[in-house]
Amino acid sequence: MNESVQRALAQFRGLVKKIKLYQEAAGVLYWDMRTQAPRKGLEARSEVVGLLSGEMFRLSVSPEMGSLLEVLAAPEALEQLDDINRRLVEECKREYDRSNKIPPERYQEYVTLTTQSESVWEEAKEKADFALFRPYLERVVAFNLEFIDYWGYQGHKYNTLLDIYEPGMTVEKLDRVFGGLKERVVPLVAEIGQSPDQPDTSFLNRHYDEQKQLEFSRFILKEMGYDFEAGRIDKSVHPFATGLNPNDVRITTNFRENDFQFSLFSSMHEGGHALYEQNLSPDLAGTLLCDGASMGIHESQSRFWENMIGRSRPFWQRYYRDLQKLFPAELGAVSPEHFYRAINVVKPSLIRIEADEVTYNLHIMVRYELEKALFSGDLAVRDLPGAWNEKYRDYLGVEPSHDGEGVLQDVHWSGGSFGYFPSYALGNMYAAQIAHALRKAMPDLDDCLSRGELKPIKDWLTEHIYRYGKLQTPNEIIMRVTGEELNPRYLVEYFENKFRPIYGLA
Amino acid sequence: MNESVQRALAQFRGLVKKIKLYQEAAGVLYWDMRTQAPRKGLEARSEVVGLLSGEMFRLSVSPEMGSLLEVLAAPEALEQLDDINRRLVEECKREYDRSNKIPPERYQEYVTLTTQSESVWEEAKEKADFALFRPYLERVVAFNLEFIDYWGYQGHKYNTLLDIYEPGMTVEKLDRVFGGLKERVVPLVAEIGQSPDQPDTSFLNRHYDEQKQLEFSRFILKEMGYDFEAGRIDKSVHPFATGLNPNDVRITTNFRENDFQFSLFSSMHEGGHALYEQNLSPDLAGTLLCDGASMGIHESQSRFWENMIGRSRPFWQRYYRDLQKLFPAELGAVSPEHFYRAINVVKPSLIRIEADEVTYNLHIMVRYELEKALFSGDLAVRDLPGAWNEKYRDYLGVEPSHDGEGVLQDVHWSGGSFGYFPSYALGNMYAAQIAHALRKAMPDLDDCLSRGELKPIKDWLTEHIYRYGKLQTPNEIIMRVTGEELNPRYLVEYFENKFRPIYGLA
Repeated sequence: MNESVQRALAQFRGLVKKIKLYQEAAGVLYWDMRTQAPRKGLEARSEVVGLLSGEMFRLSVSPEMGSLLEVLAAPEALEQLDDINRRLVEECKREYDRSNKIPPERYQEYVTLTTQSESVWEEAKEKADFALFRPYLERVVAFNLEFIDYWGYQGHKYNTLLDIYEPGMTVEKLDRVFGGLKERVVPLVAEIGQSPDQPDTSFLNRHYDEQKQLEFSRFILKEMGYDFEAGRIDKSVHPFATGLNPNDVRITTNFRENDFQFSLFSSMHEGGHALYEQNLSPDLAGTLLCDGASMGIHESQSRFWENMIGRSRPFWQRYYRDLQKLFPAELGAVSPEHFYRAINVVKPSLIRIEADEVTYNLHIMVRYELEKALFSGDLAVRDLPGAWNEKYRDYLGVEPSHDGEGVLQDVHWSGGSFGYFPSYALGNMYAAQIAHALRKAMPDLDDCLSRGELKPIKDWLTEHIYRYGKLQTPNEIIMRVTGEELNPRYLVEYFENKFRPIYGLA
Repeated sequence: MNESVQRALAQFRGLVKKIKLYQEAAGVLYWDMRTQAPRKGLEARSEVVGLLSGEMFRLSVSPEMGSLLEVLAAPEALEQLDDINRRLVEECKREYDRSNKIPPERYQEYVTLTTQSESVWEEAKEKADFALFRPYLERVVAFNLEFIDYWGYQGHKYNTLLDIYEPGMTVEKLDRVFGGLKERVVPLVAEIGQSPDQPDTSFLNRHYDEQKQLEFSRFILKEMGYDFEAGRIDKSVHPFATGLNPNDVRITTNFRENDFQFSLFSSMHEGGHALYEQNLSPDLAGTLLCDGASMGIHESQSRFWENMIGRSRPFWQRYYRDLQKLFPAELGAVSPEHFYRAINVVKPSLIRIEADEVTYNLHIMVRYELEKALFSGDLAVRDLPGAWNEKYRDYLGVEPSHDGEGVLQDVHWSGGSFGYFPSYALGNMYAAQIAHALRKAMPDLDDCLSRGELKPIKDWLTEHIYRYGKLQTPNEIIMRVTGEELNPRYLVEYFENKFRPIYGLA
């Protein structure tokens, strides 16, 4: 490596490290606000988080970063770098360019707008009054269209937004995979709905003591290989996982004493995210590659552990007896099969975050199609509520009685997060495709599960996915691990194989 | 206010606010490391704290701060400022000058030295091997002498160090007050030791359930007026209080199931610090004046609540029945008087942090006299162990069997904190003098206590001390509140009035 590149690299790594340390500090404060801080302290604390985030942003778009990237992202420098440094330079360049292409005063206006917009959305949702929110949403969409022009785009304008959350993802690709999924899932959901053999789920709403729920979640997390010496579980309003660094990855959950599923499955979900972050390669520490490859790949791991493991029959062949022991009055008389069917009930509903694993994808497709139409100009913001309701009727067979449980239900759009929703469904598809590869590598997977041997699963995922962090793109990962591009057939087959027997369908 | 002063003031306040926000961020991370963070995450986290502290220091000695202070600390500008801004400018100038007078490379060397020195001290204490620690301590002392030359001094060199922790404190003043104290306390301790009427304390070492101890501490903290919506209590190895901002002041404790006193009295001690910080005036928020006036004044509040309230007879007239209810097997047969005498046992010992409220001050005087002699050149570091043992024999009548329980017992010197120890005894004297003033203002104080009316006490302290923060110097506060300078006679009288009856002395 020549001397000027070497010098620039050392400075660049120092700068990246500093950004990462600010990120970690902000992460601790965010976690603290949501799990520990006393009520009255919150207001002042958000200023502190604002300072740290601002500093992080300032460094990542600083002239210093600019001139270092000018040296390091030049082809003759890039080819002197090892894999990690090369990817790191590319990743920082991507962020730097994205941020620097927007005139600072426009960005500032946008930040102010989205802050207002989020508050207005909250009120509008509460009042089920879309008209209140509409002017804000129109401006947020207009800003995003303006940003797309600064950033540039190839093909569909919406591609540029998709790329933020899922590098390399395009409308063309998503139309194909979502098309393949919709074609099979919509009729499957309809068939399931008509089955006379519906599971009885009433026992899930008995009273489940909070402390015992926590105890069981901790037990399962340990079984999954979550390292409690490098993490912890707490209670927060909305469950989340936060990887402060690979040696401190915390998860949260919440408890509904009359809904057994909520706490356990949210713990396994966040536990999946956490396993990813705890097992990132130590080589990546202190770099921006020390993170999941994308929103979609990250979500594939939470969904995999929550649904493909946690809602599988062999898993409960091993663990149901422990659960019964903990809740003898509530579950003593419930057979394993009865339990398994109940936690896998499929039922179209209006609210995305309460959806089962099959219908969930249809909620996402509704949002994807609406976002796509907003950014192609085929749909105006004022026509969103009608379009929303129509798609819910078509795909899920249900229709909101008001916009609060319809188009206003999610916070995402108010903050300008367009292009984010598809990650959730991508996560499900990646998960099924990865699970298929795992099953080829471990033909006795079900036997392992039924003996409670979860560690080999975590080890395989670490070896093939977790340790890479952001060192590869989502597409590179999925190609390497499964030998083909993202293909919706694995999720469809998983659904067919799992849910037809549950509902007694041929 | 003229325009240039106004402009400088706005910039200065912004800079001070930023320093304060960094301080708050570092505070949250520090608290998290000591109460919540998983074991493996600690190593990486100290780098984050290092970055934030470094940034805080960098801003407070920055050229920007320098030029703003040049404008604002000029007499013609100072006289245009209101009280808060004037004090703030003076305080920042003090810190700025202190930091900028040391050549940066010498300061860097000193930081490195004290880090090493602290590790070596730890090993030396463990091995009771002063020779191991001696060369480091010699260098730390030499550095402090060098710094004193940079900073300048009036009278005794040690005055400059005292002033860091207790602005305005001098050897002349301390010799006088400690002299007055020693003269009466040394003979009192000897008399107490010879009394045939020693309290029985054995029941304090029964088994006290940790959860119930916590429950009782929380109850007493609430009674004291500690606001749990602006704070919380957790467990850490060493108890501490941390005021992140006045709406988030957290305390910690620890539990010894075979020592009833530890958790309750450390909670009341930290609770006293916390009441101070929770009740700082909102006017001071976001400034460096939003803090206790000095180490000594801060300590006066922890000691006041711990000892003068928590170890008083009328307090237990009200609360002992609650304690008995919680621990019927352990305390059911112990009379209130028996309990009161046991928690007020006076017994010379070797270890400062385990000392009772009377002998505690003698531990401090030993350290004060040794520090003073080190900085006047009357004592060499190599002669410290001998001098230490001699003073313990003279003042306390006990002698360490090795240096681990003698001269090596405290961490302070290894980190260069000379001038800090006197704060502890100053705290006791301030507390007694303030309590005397309080009793004049509230002649029915004991009746209030025996009815559990603690709120008027907190309100009086808020009105006269807490709300001022660093707006006044320790001396200004004590003059305003008590009408005279620090006078050791109040502590002596408090001791005489309290402990003579306990020990059946005339």
